[in-house]
Amino acid sequence: MNPNNEYQTRYASYLSLIEPALRLAVEPLESPLKEAISYSLLSGGKRLRPVLTLACCDLLHGCMEDAIPFACAVEMIHAYSLIHDDLPCMDDDDLRRGQPTNHKVFGEAMAVLAGDGLQSLAFATMAHQTLEATNVWHACRAMAAVADGCGVQGMVNGQVRDLQAEGKPVSLSSLQAIHAQKTGALIEAACLAGAACAGADTASYQTIGRFGQAVGLAFQIADDILDATSDAQTLGKTPGKDARDHKATYVSLLGLETARLRAQAACQQAEEALSGFGESAWFLRMTAQNAVKRSK
Amino acid sequence: MNPNNEYQTRYASYLSLIEPALRLAVEPLESPLKEAISYSLLSGGKRLRPVLTLACCDLLHGCMEDAIPFACAVEMIHAYSLIHDDLPCMDDDDLRRGQPTNHKVFGEAMAVLAGDGLQSLAFATMAHQTLEATNVWHACRAMAAVADGCGVQGMVNGQVRDLQAEGKPVSLSSLQAIHAQKTGALIEAACLAGAACAGADTASYQTIGRFGQAVGLAFQIADDILDATSDAQTLGKTPGKDARDHKATYVSLLGLETARLRAQAACQQAEEALSGFGESAWFLRMTAQNAVKRSK
Repeated sequence: MNPNNEYQTRYASYLSLIEPALRLAVEPLESPLKEAISYSLLSGGKRLRPVLTLACCDLLHGCMEDAIPFACAVEMIHAYSLIHDDLPCMDDDDLRRGQPTNHKVFGEAMAVLAGDGLQSLAFATMAHQTLEATNVWHACRAMAAVADGCGVQGMVNGQVRDLQAEGKPVSLSSLQAIHAQKTGALIEAACLAGAACAGADTASYQTIGRFGQAVGLAFQIADDILDATSDAQTLGKTPGKDARDHKATYVSLLGLETARLRAQAACQQAEEALSGFGESAWFLRMTAQNAVKRSK
Repeated sequence: MNPNNEYQTRYASYLSLIEPALRLAVEPLESPLKEAISYSLLSGGKRLRPVLTLACCDLLHGCMEDAIPFACAVEMIHAYSLIHDDLPCMDDDDLRRGQPTNHKVFGEAMAVLAGDGLQSLAFATMAHQTLEATNVWHACRAMAAVADGCGVQGMVNGQVRDLQAEGKPVSLSSLQAIHAQKTGALIEAACLAGAACAGADTASYQTIGRFGQAVGLAFQIADDILDATSDAQTLGKTPGKDARDHKATYVSLLGLETARLRAQAACQQAEEALSGFGESAWFLRMTAQNAVKRSK
Protein backbone atom coordinates (compact mmCIF):
# COMPACT_ATOMS: atom_id res chain seq x y z
CA MET A 1 0.00 0.00 0.00
CA ASN A 2 1.36 3.47 -0.74
CA PRO A 3 1.85 5.76 2.25
CA ASN A 4 -1.11 7.95 1.32
CA ASN A 5 -3.49 5.01 1.17
CA GLU A 6 -2.15 3.67 4.43
CA TYR A 7 -2.66 7.10 5.97
CA GLN A 8 -6.25 7.33 4.72
CA THR A 9 -6.98 3.83 6.04
CA ARG A 10 -5.63 4.62 9.48
CA TYR A 11 -7.47 7.97 9.55
CA ALA A 12 -10.70 6.21 8.60
CA SER A 13 -10.20 3.61 11.32
CA TYR A 14 -9.93 6.38 13.93
CA LEU A 15 -13.02 8.09 12.48
CA SER A 16 -14.91 4.80 12.73
CA LEU A 17 -14.34 4.93 16.49
CA ILE A 18 -15.16 8.63 16.86
CA GLU A 19 -18.30 9.10 14.77
CA PRO A 20 -20.48 6.42 16.41
CA ALA A 21 -19.34 7.54 19.87
CA LEU A 22 -20.37 11.14 19.10
CA ARG A 23 -23.76 9.98 17.82
CA LEU A 24 -24.24 7.85 20.92
CA ALA A 25 -23.37 10.77 23.20
CA VAL A 26 -26.19 12.97 21.85
CA GLU A 27 -28.72 10.10 21.76
CA PRO A 28 -30.21 10.68 25.26
CA LEU A 29 -30.70 14.43 24.70
CA GLU A 30 -34.16 15.96 24.47
CA SER A 31 -35.57 17.83 21.53
CA PRO A 32 -34.94 20.65 20.48
CA LEU A 33 -31.55 20.85 22.20
CA LYS A 34 -30.64 17.52 20.63
CA GLU A 35 -31.20 18.85 17.11
CA ALA A 36 -29.28 22.07 17.74
CA ILE A 37 -26.31 20.20 19.20
CA SER A 38 -26.37 17.43 16.59
CA TYR A 39 -26.50 19.99 13.78
CA SER A 40 -23.07 21.32 14.71
CA LEU A 41 -21.46 18.25 16.27
CA LEU A 42 -22.45 15.72 13.62
CA SER A 43 -21.99 17.92 10.57
CA GLY A 44 -18.73 16.42 9.41
CA GLY A 45 -15.57 18.40 9.76
CA LYS A 46 -12.09 16.93 9.61
CA ARG A 47 -12.12 15.61 13.21
CA LEU A 48 -8.44 16.58 13.40
CA ARG A 49 -8.48 17.00 17.18
CA PRO A 50 -10.08 13.68 18.17
CA VAL A 51 -7.92 11.88 15.62
CA LEU A 52 -4.87 13.40 17.29
CA THR A 53 -6.13 12.17 20.67
CA LEU A 54 -6.49 8.60 19.45
CA ALA A 55 -3.24 8.64 17.46
CA CYS A 56 -1.22 9.97 20.41
CA CYS A 57 -2.73 7.33 22.69
CA ASP A 58 -1.99 4.70 20.03
CA LEU A 59 1.62 5.81 19.66
CA LEU A 60 2.15 5.23 23.38
CA HIS A 61 0.42 1.83 23.25
CA GLY A 62 -2.63 3.02 25.20
CA CYS A 63 -6.06 1.44 24.94
CA MET A 64 -8.34 3.07 22.33
CA GLU A 65 -11.46 2.36 24.41
CA ASP A 66 -10.06 4.51 27.22
CA ALA A 67 -9.27 7.39 24.86
CA ILE A 68 -12.49 7.55 22.79
CA PRO A 69 -14.53 9.58 25.35
CA PHE A 70 -11.70 12.11 25.59
CA ALA A 71 -11.44 12.33 21.80
CA CYS A 72 -15.20 12.99 21.69
CA ALA A 73 -14.94 15.57 24.47
CA VAL A 74 -12.28 17.52 22.57
CA GLU A 75 -14.48 17.56 19.45
CA MET A 76 -17.49 18.69 21.52
CA ILE A 77 -15.46 21.59 22.86
CA HIS A 78 -14.27 22.46 19.37
CA ALA A 79 -17.90 22.39 18.14
CA TYR A 80 -19.08 24.62 21.00
CA SER A 81 -16.31 27.13 20.29
CA LEU A 82 -17.35 27.35 16.62
CA ILE A 83 -21.03 27.90 17.51
CA HIS A 84 -20.20 30.73 19.92
CA ASP A 85 -17.55 32.13 17.57
CA ASP A 86 -20.10 32.49 14.78
CA LEU A 87 -22.65 34.40 16.93
CA PRO A 88 -23.64 37.88 15.74
CA CYS A 89 -21.94 39.49 18.75
CA MET A 90 -18.72 37.59 17.98
CA ASP A 91 -17.55 36.95 14.38
CA ASP A 92 -21.12 37.19 13.00
CA ASP A 93 -20.75 34.43 10.44
CA ASP A 94 -23.43 32.87 8.25
CA LEU A 95 -21.57 29.88 6.87
CA ARG A 96 -19.75 26.97 8.52
CA ARG A 97 -18.77 23.67 6.92
CA GLY A 98 -20.80 24.64 3.89
CA GLN A 99 -24.01 25.06 5.93
CA PRO A 100 -25.78 27.98 7.63
CA THR A 101 -24.30 28.60 11.07
CA ASN A 102 -26.11 27.29 14.16
CA HIS A 103 -27.78 30.57 15.13
CA LYS A 104 -29.00 31.08 11.56
CA VAL A 105 -30.94 27.82 11.86
CA PHE A 106 -31.91 27.66 15.54
CA GLY A 107 -31.77 31.31 16.62
CA GLU A 108 -29.27 33.05 18.84
CA ALA A 109 -30.64 31.93 22.22
CA MET A 110 -30.57 28.28 21.23
CA ALA A 111 -27.08 28.66 19.73
CA VAL A 112 -25.78 30.07 23.03
CA LEU A 113 -27.37 27.14 24.89
CA ALA A 114 -26.20 24.53 22.37
CA GLY A 115 -22.64 25.79 22.88
CA ASP A 116 -23.02 25.84 26.66
CA GLY A 117 -24.51 22.35 26.55
CA LEU A 118 -21.72 21.00 24.35
CA GLN A 119 -19.12 22.23 26.81
CA SER A 120 -20.89 20.57 29.74
CA LEU A 121 -21.48 17.41 27.70
CA ALA A 122 -17.73 17.26 27.05
CA PHE A 123 -16.96 17.36 30.75
CA ALA A 124 -19.79 15.00 31.69
CA THR A 125 -18.47 12.52 29.11
CA MET A 126 -14.97 12.74 30.56
CA ALA A 127 -16.12 12.62 34.19
CA HIS A 128 -18.22 9.49 33.67
CA GLN A 129 -15.44 7.80 31.70
CA THR A 130 -13.05 8.65 34.52
CA LEU A 131 -15.32 6.99 37.08
CA GLU A 132 -15.19 3.80 34.99
CA ALA A 133 -11.56 4.06 33.85
CA THR A 134 -9.01 1.31 34.37
CA ASN A 135 -6.71 3.98 35.75
CA VAL A 136 -8.66 6.83 37.32
CA TRP A 137 -5.59 9.03 37.70
CA HIS A 138 -4.59 8.76 34.04
CA ALA A 139 -8.14 9.64 33.01
CA CYS A 140 -8.19 12.57 35.40
CA ARG A 141 -4.93 13.88 33.99
CA ALA A 142 -6.47 13.74 30.50
CA MET A 143 -9.48 15.69 31.73
CA ALA A 144 -7.28 18.32 33.37
CA ALA A 145 -5.35 18.72 30.10
CA VAL A 146 -8.57 19.36 28.19
CA ALA A 147 -9.90 21.74 30.87
CA ASP A 148 -6.65 23.72 30.76
CA GLY A 149 -6.51 23.82 26.96
CA CYS A 150 -10.05 25.06 26.45
CA GLY A 151 -10.17 27.43 29.37
CA VAL A 152 -9.37 30.85 30.72
CA GLN A 153 -5.65 30.41 30.23
CA GLY A 154 -6.12 28.66 26.89
CA MET A 155 -8.74 28.85 24.15
CA VAL A 156 -11.17 31.25 25.83
CA ASN A 157 -8.43 33.75 26.64
CA GLY A 158 -7.15 33.45 23.07
CA GLN A 159 -10.61 34.40 21.85
CA VAL A 160 -10.65 37.40 24.17
CA ARG A 161 -7.23 38.55 22.99
CA ASP A 162 -8.24 38.03 19.37
CA LEU A 163 -11.32 40.24 19.88
CA GLN A 164 -9.24 42.87 21.66
CA ALA A 165 -6.69 42.95 18.83
CA GLU A 166 -9.26 43.54 16.08
CA GLY A 167 -8.47 46.65 14.04
CA LYS A 168 -5.29 47.32 16.01
CA PRO A 169 -1.67 46.91 14.88
CA VAL A 170 -0.40 43.52 16.06
CA SER A 171 3.19 42.34 16.13
CA LEU A 172 4.16 38.88 14.92
CA SER A 173 4.98 37.77 18.46
CA SER A 174 1.57 38.96 19.73
CA LEU A 175 -0.13 37.15 16.87
CA GLN A 176 1.72 33.97 17.74
CA ALA A 177 0.77 34.32 21.40
CA ILE A 178 -2.90 34.88 20.51
CA HIS A 179 -3.03 31.84 18.24
CA ALA A 180 -1.08 29.64 20.63
CA GLN A 181 -4.05 30.10 22.98
CA LYS A 182 -6.94 30.45 20.55
CA THR A 183 -6.19 27.47 18.31
CA GLY A 184 -3.02 25.87 19.59
CA ALA A 185 -4.06 25.17 23.18
CA LEU A 186 -6.96 22.86 22.28
CA ILE A 187 -4.91 21.02 19.61
CA GLU A 188 -2.14 20.55 22.16
CA ALA A 189 -4.70 19.40 24.74
CA ALA A 190 -6.12 16.88 22.26
CA CYS A 191 -2.65 15.35 21.95
CA LEU A 192 -1.96 15.49 25.70
CA ALA A 193 -5.29 13.84 26.53
CA GLY A 194 -4.32 10.89 24.34
CA ALA A 195 -0.90 10.68 25.96
CA ALA A 196 -2.43 10.89 29.44
CA CYS A 197 -4.89 8.08 28.65
CA ALA A 198 -1.92 5.92 27.65
CA GLY A 199 -0.27 6.65 31.00
CA ALA A 200 2.62 8.58 29.43
CA ASP A 201 5.70 9.20 31.56
CA THR A 202 6.77 12.82 32.03
CA ALA A 203 9.25 12.81 29.13
CA SER A 204 6.77 11.37 26.61
CA TYR A 205 4.05 13.68 27.88
CA GLN A 206 6.26 16.71 27.29
CA THR A 207 7.29 15.45 23.86
CA ILE A 208 3.67 15.01 22.82
CA GLY A 209 2.98 18.52 24.16
CA ARG A 210 5.74 20.01 21.96
CA PHE A 211 4.38 18.10 18.98
CA GLY A 212 0.86 19.41 19.68
CA GLN A 213 2.05 23.01 19.95
CA ALA A 214 3.90 22.81 16.64
CA VAL A 215 0.94 21.17 14.87
CA GLY A 216 -1.35 23.86 16.29
CA LEU A 217 0.90 26.59 14.90
CA ALA A 218 1.21 24.89 11.48
CA PHE A 219 -2.56 24.44 11.39
CA GLN A 220 -3.26 28.08 12.21
CA ILE A 221 -0.84 29.47 9.61
CA ALA A 222 -2.42 27.17 7.03
CA ASP A 223 -5.84 28.49 8.12
CA ASP A 224 -4.73 32.06 7.54
CA ILE A 225 -3.37 31.12 4.11
CA LEU A 226 -6.65 29.42 3.19
CA ASP A 227 -8.67 32.38 4.42
CA ALA A 228 -6.65 34.63 2.08
CA THR A 229 -6.58 32.35 -0.96
CA SER A 230 -9.56 29.99 -1.02
CA ASP A 231 -13.21 30.33 -2.00
CA ALA A 232 -16.34 29.68 0.06
CA GLN A 233 -17.24 26.47 -1.75
CA THR A 234 -13.91 24.79 -1.14
CA LEU A 235 -13.55 26.18 2.36
CA GLY A 236 -17.14 25.63 3.55
CA LYS A 237 -16.96 28.91 5.43
CA THR A 238 -16.73 32.57 4.49
CA PRO A 239 -13.20 33.31 3.19
CA GLY A 240 -11.55 36.72 3.40
CA LYS A 241 -13.17 37.45 6.73
CA ASP A 242 -9.87 38.18 8.45
CA ALA A 243 -9.32 41.09 6.06
CA ARG A 244 -12.97 42.15 6.46
CA ASP A 245 -12.62 42.20 10.24
CA HIS A 246 -9.22 43.96 10.04
CA LYS A 247 -7.61 41.01 11.77
CA ALA A 248 -3.87 40.56 11.66
CA THR A 249 -2.91 37.17 10.21
CA TYR A 250 0.32 35.43 9.32
CA VAL A 251 -0.42 36.37 5.71
CA SER A 252 -1.08 40.04 6.43
CA LEU A 253 2.06 40.32 8.57
CA LEU A 254 4.47 38.15 6.55
CA GLY A 255 3.04 37.94 3.03
CA LEU A 256 1.86 34.72 1.42
CA GLU A 257 5.23 33.17 0.59
CA THR A 258 6.86 33.74 3.97
CA ALA A 259 3.69 32.49 5.68
CA ARG A 260 3.97 29.28 3.64
CA LEU A 261 7.61 28.87 4.69
CA ARG A 262 6.64 29.41 8.33
CA ALA A 263 3.93 26.76 8.10
CA GLN A 264 6.48 24.35 6.63
CA ALA A 265 8.92 25.17 9.44
CA ALA A 266 6.26 24.54 12.10
CA CYS A 267 5.39 21.25 10.43
CA GLN A 268 9.06 20.24 10.46
CA GLN A 269 9.27 21.18 14.14
CA ALA A 270 6.31 18.92 14.82
CA GLU A 271 7.93 16.04 12.95
CA GLU A 272 11.23 16.55 14.75
CA ALA A 273 9.53 16.52 18.15
CA LEU A 274 8.63 12.90 17.44
CA SER A 275 12.07 11.81 16.21
CA GLY A 276 12.60 9.69 19.34
CA PHE A 277 9.65 7.51 18.36
CA GLY A 278 11.20 6.53 15.02
CA GLU A 279 9.02 4.93 12.37
CA SER A 280 6.09 4.26 14.70
CA ALA A 281 5.18 7.97 14.66
CA TRP A 282 4.60 8.01 10.86
CA PHE A 283 0.87 8.68 11.20
CA LEU A 284 1.33 11.72 13.43
CA ARG A 285 4.09 13.03 11.14
CA MET A 286 1.80 12.78 8.11
CA THR A 287 -1.00 14.42 10.11
CA ALA A 288 1.30 17.39 10.71
CA GLN A 289 2.12 17.55 6.99
CA ASN A 290 -1.53 17.36 6.04
CA ALA A 291 -2.40 20.18 8.46
CA VAL A 292 -0.30 22.37 6.16
CA LYS A 293 -1.19 20.82 2.79
CA ARG A 294 -4.97 20.74 3.29
CA SER A 295 -7.40 22.66 1.06
CA LYS A 296 -10.06 23.29 3.74
CA MET B 1 -26.59 31.54 71.43
CA ASN B 2 -30.03 31.69 69.82
CA PRO B 3 -30.56 29.43 66.78
CA ASN B 4 -30.54 32.33 64.34
CA ASN B 5 -27.20 33.63 65.58
CA GLU B 6 -25.76 30.15 65.52
CA TYR B 7 -27.02 29.78 61.93
CA GLN B 8 -25.49 33.09 60.87
CA THR B 9 -22.18 32.15 62.48
CA ARG B 10 -22.04 28.80 60.68
CA TYR B 11 -23.07 30.40 57.38
CA ALA B 12 -20.33 32.99 57.80
CA SER B 13 -17.76 30.30 58.55
CA TYR B 14 -18.61 28.55 55.27
CA LEU B 15 -18.46 31.88 53.42
CA SER B 16 -15.02 32.50 54.92
CA LEU B 17 -13.84 29.35 53.14
CA ILE B 18 -15.59 30.08 49.84
CA GLU B 19 -14.86 33.76 49.21
CA PRO B 20 -11.04 33.63 49.43
CA ALA B 21 -10.99 30.45 47.31
CA LEU B 22 -13.04 32.16 44.59
CA ARG B 23 -10.74 35.19 44.63
CA LEU B 24 -7.69 32.93 44.43
CA ALA B 25 -9.17 31.04 41.47
CA VAL B 26 -9.44 34.16 39.31
CA GLU B 27 -6.04 35.53 40.40
CA PRO B 28 -3.98 33.97 37.53
CA LEU B 29 -6.35 35.21 34.81
CA GLU B 30 -5.32 37.84 32.29
CA SER B 31 -6.96 41.19 31.81
CA PRO B 32 -9.63 41.92 30.50
CA LEU B 33 -11.14 38.44 30.94
CA LYS B 34 -10.19 38.58 34.62
CA GLU B 35 -12.22 41.75 35.18
CA ALA B 36 -15.26 40.44 33.28
CA ILE B 37 -15.25 37.17 35.22
CA SER B 38 -14.52 38.79 38.59
CA TYR B 39 -17.33 41.30 38.06
CA SER B 40 -19.91 38.52 38.08
CA LEU B 41 -18.23 35.91 40.25
CA LEU B 42 -17.10 38.20 43.07
CA SER B 43 -20.16 40.45 43.19
CA GLY B 44 -21.69 38.98 46.30
CA GLY B 45 -24.80 36.92 46.04
CA LYS B 46 -26.06 34.56 48.70
CA ARG B 47 -23.63 31.73 47.81
CA LEU B 48 -26.44 29.31 48.60
CA ARG B 49 -25.09 26.56 46.33
CA PRO B 50 -21.49 26.43 47.59
CA VAL B 51 -22.73 26.70 51.19
CA LEU B 52 -24.91 23.64 50.51
CA THR B 53 -21.86 21.79 49.15
CA LEU B 54 -19.83 22.48 52.28
CA ALA B 55 -22.72 21.84 54.66
CA CYS B 56 -23.58 18.48 53.05
CA CYS B 57 -19.91 17.45 53.20
CA ASP B 58 -19.80 18.60 56.82
CA LEU B 59 -22.94 16.64 57.76
CA LEU B 60 -21.27 13.44 56.51
CA HIS B 61 -18.02 14.24 58.37
CA GLY B 62 -16.09 14.96 55.17
CA CYS B 63 -13.03 17.19 55.00
CA MET B 64 -13.79 20.83 54.14
CA GLU B 65 -10.51 21.24 52.25
CA ASP B 66 -11.58 18.51 49.81
CA ALA B 67 -14.97 20.11 49.22
CA ILE B 68 -13.97 23.79 48.77
CA PRO B 69 -12.94 23.48 45.08
CA PHE B 70 -16.24 21.78 44.27
CA ALA B 71 -18.17 24.45 46.17
CA CYS B 72 -16.33 27.08 44.12
CA ALA B 73 -16.99 25.19 40.88
CA VAL B 74 -20.73 25.11 41.55
CA GLU B 75 -20.73 28.88 42.17
CA MET B 76 -18.72 29.46 38.96
CA ILE B 77 -21.30 27.51 37.00
CA HIS B 78 -24.11 29.45 38.66
CA ALA B 79 -22.35 32.73 37.76
CA TYR B 80 -21.84 31.66 34.12
CA SER B 81 -25.51 30.72 33.82
CA LEU B 82 -26.59 34.13 35.09
CA ILE B 83 -24.29 35.97 32.64
CA HIS B 84 -25.61 34.00 29.65
CA ASP B 85 -29.20 34.19 30.94
CA ASP B 86 -29.05 37.98 31.01
CA LEU B 87 -27.80 38.31 27.39
CA PRO B 88 -29.98 40.30 24.98
CA CYS B 89 -30.79 37.15 22.98
CA MET B 90 -31.86 35.36 26.18
CA ASP B 91 -33.73 37.19 28.99
CA ASP B 92 -32.28 40.59 28.00
CA ASP B 93 -31.78 41.88 31.50
CA ASP B 94 -30.05 45.07 32.63
CA LEU B 95 -29.82 44.49 36.37
CA ARG B 96 -28.34 41.70 38.47
CA ARG B 97 -27.48 41.80 42.16
CA GLY B 98 -28.18 45.53 42.08
CA GLN B 99 -25.56 46.18 39.37
CA PRO B 100 -25.66 46.46 35.56
CA THR B 101 -25.50 42.99 33.99
CA ASN B 102 -22.19 41.70 32.61
CA HIS B 103 -22.88 42.51 28.95
CA LYS B 104 -24.00 46.04 29.88
CA VAL B 105 -20.53 46.67 31.31
CA PHE B 106 -18.24 44.54 29.13
CA GLY B 107 -20.24 44.11 25.91
CA GLU B 108 -21.98 41.05 24.56
CA ALA B 109 -18.95 39.28 23.08
CA MET B 110 -17.02 39.50 26.32
CA ALA B 111 -20.07 38.38 28.32
CA VAL B 112 -20.38 35.26 26.16
CA LEU B 113 -16.68 34.53 26.69
CA ALA B 114 -16.78 35.30 30.42
CA GLY B 115 -19.60 32.76 30.76
CA ASP B 116 -17.76 30.20 28.64
CA GLY B 117 -14.60 30.80 30.65
CA LEU B 118 -16.40 30.43 33.98
CA GLN B 119 -17.74 27.05 32.93
CA SER B 120 -14.30 25.81 31.91
CA LEU B 121 -12.75 27.32 35.06
CA ALA B 122 -15.26 25.32 37.12
CA PHE B 123 -14.19 22.08 35.48
CA ALA B 124 -10.49 22.92 35.54
CA THR B 125 -10.81 23.67 39.26
CA MET B 126 -12.48 20.31 39.88
CA ALA B 127 -10.13 18.34 37.61
CA HIS B 128 -7.00 19.70 39.30
CA GLN B 129 -8.46 19.13 42.76
CA THR B 130 -9.29 15.57 41.74
CA LEU B 131 -5.68 14.94 40.68
CA GLU B 132 -4.58 15.99 44.19
CA ALA B 133 -7.49 14.49 46.14
CA THR B 134 -7.04 12.08 49.02
CA ASN B 135 -9.62 9.88 47.32
CA VAL B 136 -9.61 10.38 43.55
CA TRP B 137 -12.78 8.37 43.03
CA HIS B 138 -14.81 10.39 45.54
CA ALA B 139 -13.63 13.60 43.88
CA CYS B 140 -14.49 12.23 40.45
CA ARG B 141 -17.97 11.32 41.61
CA ALA B 142 -18.43 14.91 42.83
CA MET B 143 -17.30 16.22 39.44
CA ALA B 144 -19.69 13.91 37.59
CA ALA B 145 -22.57 15.12 39.81
CA VAL B 146 -21.81 18.74 38.92
CA ALA B 147 -21.39 17.93 35.21
CA ASP B 148 -24.75 16.14 35.18
CA GLY B 149 -26.53 18.87 37.11
CA CYS B 150 -25.38 21.74 34.92
CA GLY B 151 -25.59 19.97 31.61
CA VAL B 152 -27.76 18.89 28.72
CA GLN B 153 -29.98 16.75 30.92
CA GLY B 154 -29.96 19.31 33.72
CA MET B 155 -29.66 23.09 33.85
CA VAL B 156 -29.01 23.75 30.14
CA ASN B 157 -31.98 21.68 29.06
CA GLY B 158 -34.13 23.44 31.65
CA GLN B 159 -33.14 26.76 30.07
CA VAL B 160 -34.08 25.45 26.64
CA ARG B 161 -37.47 24.24 27.87
CA ASP B 162 -38.04 27.52 29.65
CA LEU B 163 -37.38 29.44 26.42
CA GLN B 164 -39.63 27.11 24.45
CA ALA B 165 -42.48 27.55 26.94
CA GLU B 166 -42.46 31.35 26.80
CA GLY B 167 -45.84 32.75 25.86
CA LYS B 168 -47.43 29.30 25.74
CA PRO B 169 -49.88 27.71 28.18
CA VAL B 170 -47.91 25.55 30.64
CA SER B 171 -49.35 22.99 33.03
CA LEU B 172 -48.21 22.80 36.64
CA SER B 173 -46.46 19.48 36.01
CA SER B 174 -44.58 20.94 33.00
CA LEU B 175 -43.57 23.95 35.07
CA GLN B 176 -42.27 21.66 37.80
CA ALA B 177 -40.33 19.60 35.26
CA ILE B 178 -38.80 22.75 33.73
CA HIS B 179 -37.73 24.14 37.08
CA ALA B 180 -36.46 20.80 38.35
CA GLN B 181 -33.89 21.05 35.54
CA LYS B 182 -33.38 24.81 35.25
CA THR B 183 -32.87 25.58 38.94
CA GLY B 184 -33.23 22.33 40.85
CA ALA B 185 -30.57 20.26 39.10
CA LEU B 186 -27.66 22.53 40.03
CA ILE B 187 -28.86 22.94 43.64
CA GLU B 188 -29.19 19.16 43.89
CA ALA B 189 -25.73 18.77 42.31
CA ALA B 190 -24.28 21.22 44.84
CA CYS B 191 -25.55 18.98 47.64
CA LEU B 192 -24.45 15.76 45.93
CA ALA B 193 -20.95 17.11 45.28
CA GLY B 194 -20.56 17.72 49.02
CA ALA B 195 -21.85 14.25 49.83
CA ALA B 196 -19.52 12.68 47.23
CA CYS B 197 -16.50 14.52 48.67
CA ALA B 198 -17.35 13.04 52.06
CA GLY B 199 -17.42 9.55 50.53
CA ALA B 200 -21.15 9.09 51.15
CA ASP B 201 -22.54 5.56 50.92
CA THR B 202 -25.37 4.97 48.45
CA ALA B 203 -28.16 5.51 51.00
CA SER B 204 -26.78 8.81 52.29
CA TYR B 205 -26.05 9.96 48.74
CA GLN B 206 -29.66 9.36 47.75
CA THR B 207 -30.95 11.06 50.89
CA ILE B 208 -28.88 14.14 50.18
CA GLY B 209 -30.17 14.06 46.59
CA ARG B 210 -33.79 14.08 47.79
CA PHE B 211 -32.99 16.95 50.15
CA GLY B 212 -31.37 18.88 47.28
CA GLN B 213 -34.34 18.38 44.98
CA ALA B 214 -36.78 19.60 47.61
CA VAL B 215 -34.64 22.64 48.46
CA GLY B 216 -34.38 23.43 44.75
CA LEU B 217 -38.15 23.35 44.41
CA ALA B 218 -38.70 25.46 47.53
CA PHE B 219 -36.11 27.95 46.28
CA GLN B 220 -37.71 28.27 42.85
CA ILE B 221 -41.24 28.79 44.18
CA ALA B 222 -39.86 31.46 46.53
CA ASP B 223 -38.12 33.06 43.51
CA ASP B 224 -41.41 33.23 41.63
CA ILE B 225 -43.12 34.77 44.67
CA LEU B 226 -40.37 37.39 45.00
CA ASP B 227 -40.53 38.19 41.28
CA ALA B 228 -44.24 38.89 41.68
CA THR B 229 -44.13 40.81 44.97
CA SER B 230 -40.75 42.50 45.46
CA ASP B 231 -39.13 45.66 44.15
CA ALA B 232 -35.87 46.10 42.23
CA GLN B 233 -34.00 47.63 45.16
CA THR B 234 -34.71 44.77 47.54
CA LEU B 235 -34.31 42.11 44.86
CA GLY B 236 -31.21 43.49 43.12
CA LYS B 237 -32.67 42.41 39.79
CA THR B 238 -35.63 43.45 37.67
CA PRO B 239 -38.85 42.19 39.29
CA GLY B 240 -42.01 41.40 37.36
CA LYS B 241 -40.04 40.07 34.41
CA ASP B 242 -41.84 36.74 34.41
CA ALA B 243 -45.11 38.52 33.70
CA ARG B 244 -43.39 40.77 31.13
CA ASP B 245 -41.99 37.72 29.32
CA HIS B 246 -45.35 35.88 29.57
CA LYS B 247 -43.67 33.14 31.58
CA ALA B 248 -45.72 30.71 33.58
CA THR B 249 -44.73 30.73 37.26
CA TYR B 250 -45.98 29.03 40.40
CA VAL B 251 -47.69 32.33 41.22
CA SER B 252 -49.39 32.71 37.83
CA LEU B 253 -50.59 29.09 37.89
CA LEU B 254 -51.52 28.73 41.57
CA GLY B 255 -52.01 32.25 42.90
CA LEU B 256 -49.87 33.81 45.61
CA GLU B 257 -51.31 32.03 48.63
CA THR B 258 -51.25 28.52 47.20
CA ALA B 259 -47.73 29.14 45.88
CA ARG B 260 -46.69 30.07 49.45
CA LEU B 261 -48.21 26.86 50.79
CA ARG B 262 -46.39 24.84 48.13
CA ALA B 263 -43.08 26.45 49.05
CA GLN B 264 -43.73 25.55 52.69
CA ALA B 265 -44.56 21.98 51.70
CA ALA B 266 -41.34 21.66 49.66
CA CYS B 267 -39.38 23.06 52.59
CA GLN B 268 -40.96 20.50 54.91
CA GLN B 269 -40.12 17.72 52.43
CA ALA B 270 -36.50 18.87 52.48
CA GLU B 271 -36.45 18.82 56.28
CA GLU B 272 -38.06 15.39 56.42
CA ALA B 273 -35.51 13.95 53.97
CA LEU B 274 -32.88 14.62 56.63
CA SER B 275 -34.82 13.13 59.57
CA GLY B 276 -32.40 10.18 59.77
CA PHE B 277 -29.57 12.56 60.63
CA GLY B 278 -31.32 13.90 63.73
CA GLU B 279 -30.08 17.10 65.34
CA SER B 280 -26.81 17.20 63.37
CA ALA B 281 -28.71 18.31 60.23
CA TRP B 282 -30.00 21.50 61.89
CA PHE B 283 -28.00 23.79 59.62
CA LEU B 284 -29.31 22.24 56.41
CA ARG B 285 -32.87 22.31 57.78
CA MET B 286 -32.60 26.02 58.53
CA THR B 287 -31.09 26.60 55.09
CA ALA B 288 -34.20 25.03 53.56
CA GLN B 289 -36.41 27.26 55.70
CA ASN B 290 -34.43 30.34 54.74
CA ALA B 291 -34.70 29.48 51.03
CA VAL B 292 -38.42 30.09 51.48
CA LYS B 293 -38.32 32.99 53.96
CA ARG B 294 -35.70 35.07 52.13
CA SER B 295 -36.42 38.56 50.81
CA LYS B 296 -34.01 38.39 47.81
